[in-house]
Amino acid sequence: MSDARGSLRLSLGDVERAIYPRSALKPIQAVPLIESGAADAFAVSDEELALACASHSGEVQATTPIAAWLRRIGCSAGDLACGPHRPLHEPTATAMIARSEKWTPLHNNCSGKHTGFMTLARGLGAPVANYQEHDHPVQRAVETTLKEMTGITRDLPYGVDGCTVPNFAVLLAALARAMAEIADPSALPFGRADVRRRILAAMMDHPELVAGTGRPCTLLMQQNPKIAVKTGAEGVYAAILPDLGYGVAIKIDDGASRAAETAIAAVLIALGATPDEGAAAGLARAPVLNTRGVPIGERRASAILRHSS
Amino acid sequence: MSDARGSLRLSLGDVERAIYPRSALKPIQAVPLIESGAADAFAVSDEELALACASHSGEVQATTPIAAWLRRIGCSAGDLACGPHRPLHEPTATAMIARSEKWTPLHNNCSGKHTGFMTLARGLGAPVANYQEHDHPVQRAVETTLKEMTGITRDLPYGVDGCTVPNFAVLLAALARAMAEIADPSALPFGRADVRRRILAAMMDHPELVAGTGRPCTLLMQQNPKIAVKTGAEGVYAAILPDLGYGVAIKIDDGASRAAETAIAAVLIALGATPDEGAAAGLARAPVLNTRGVPIGERRASAILRHSS
Repeated sequence: MSDARGSLRLSLGDVERAIYPRSALKPIQAVPLIESGAADAFAVSDEELALACASHSGEVQATTPIAAWLRRIGCSAGDLACGPHRPLHEPTATAMIARSEKWTPLHNNCSGKHTGFMTLARGLGAPVANYQEHDHPVQRAVETTLKEMTGITRDLPYGVDGCTVPNFAVLLAALARAMAEIADPSALPFGRADVRRRILAAMMDHPELVAGTGRPCTLLMQQNPKIAVKTGAEGVYAAILPDLGYGVAIKIDDGASRAAETAIAAVLIALGATPDEGAAAGLARAPVLNTRGVPIGERRASAILRHSS
Repeated sequence: MSDARGSLRLSLGDVERAIYPRSALKPIQAVPLIESGAADAFAVSDEELALACASHSGEVQATTPIAAWLRRIGCSAGDLACGPHRPLHEPTATAMIARSEKWTPLHNNCSGKHTGFMTLARGLGAPVANYQEHDHPVQRAVETTLKEMTGITRDLPYGVDGCTVPNFAVLLAALARAMAEIADPSALPFGRADVRRRILAAMMDHPELVAGTGRPCTLLMQQNPKIAVKTGAEGVYAAILPDLGYGVAIKIDDGASRAAETAIAAVLIALGATPDEGAAAGLARAPVLNTRGVPIGERRASAILRHSS
């Protein structure tokens, strides 16, 4: 947990180790979309901004507006560089199977981010093709933004993310600092601060679009509409806490999302950023059920996390 | 890795810690089914024995013979104490959804084990009802067997498994020893040694029933028909290596099955129990693919495992 100046307010484990933020990078990847003027040039709505920051579940509430956004910028699902995958929302997947429908890149949880990238390409006057490549102006803009927000000056190492775009490695502490800059952009010039406030507001106003029905990020944001929570693959969670002015970044080394969900809920409760009830309490302490629905154990955070405030 | 006398031949990490073997317990849970005479009294076939040791995928190749076995002992799927769950074999699940069929306890990966338990209840002249309870003669027989095979004299702590039956906690080293007794039962009286040989032969002769199409246990046993491999939930793998006379037990602390699959394949290769090619090589070193099917990383065992022979 960091403030916007990069002062660590709480750290557990090795936070000075490089990690891939994976989808927790999305709120940062959305910054150049607005800062470049592309979002305004293409009348990007707050719903669309939320979808650019989203790992959505492939529900109609996400795929329909993304398809419309693609049309507005003169593109189609065929231009999305992310591959298709089964919708994360199981009833949506089941209904598609029953209708013999195939998932498309629109159902990829990253399709909003990719549409944002193509919008940025248009805004920069760059070709849309190959927007996913490391040397494309879109990804150059993302890296520049991430370096500014983390205070890192050298070029960032990167891997190819599950959806084919570069994912840059940063220290866990640096990711928390970047999130803190969104939580508290007061030290930035007004225009740049406003970009961060707009991203935060878009996420907080549309928790159902940032993830999806029943997903932890959505549930936690619905429970406290004054925080933003964003997961990433392989055990990553980030949170943006504007009332406290803090950014939170969590990485579970073994990549387990159940541990990461438990940890983020426990940390938010310990910080008082969410009450110890409802969805947060359910994530922080969940019964383990067997195939007959009988509780046979409990998943909970270790004591050090529960008392980490 | 242990021999049948309990001498550790190789250990990495804390092998003197209690773990739940979960489904890796199944070959041991099948011992009293034969030793009691129940298997012979009810003409249990080698295919059925393999299914008693199985975490099957809910494919027809498993559910059809289990349904027939249930009928033969005067029971039905409604008597199975394991709840229903989605078939592990995804094409089977998808086809069921398309036909608006619901999964039943027969599709539970443990339904063969449960049918074995009910057969044992019949053989013991005990009521079939509540065969899943800790104080039922069936579970008493299982605990006695496990204590004998691990050399533990005190009562074993237990939890309730995902399929509702007791799962007994044993030291990881003790689980390896029990597997070694199946690999090399030569120190046992002939009758009891034969029970272990029969279980091992049933597993080795029916790798497709012990797990299912495309599953690691099945692939590894198909690659070397002279070993048995059995997974358990939460990162457990056991292997029975009769040519070496060793039993192997692996537990990944965080419960990740991808790590456990990688580790068991790497260990089998390092021991020379399987060649470093085909399925074993594919499990020991697997490319990580993104949603477009492009390799973006590699999953592999750490060097200490790769050179553990």
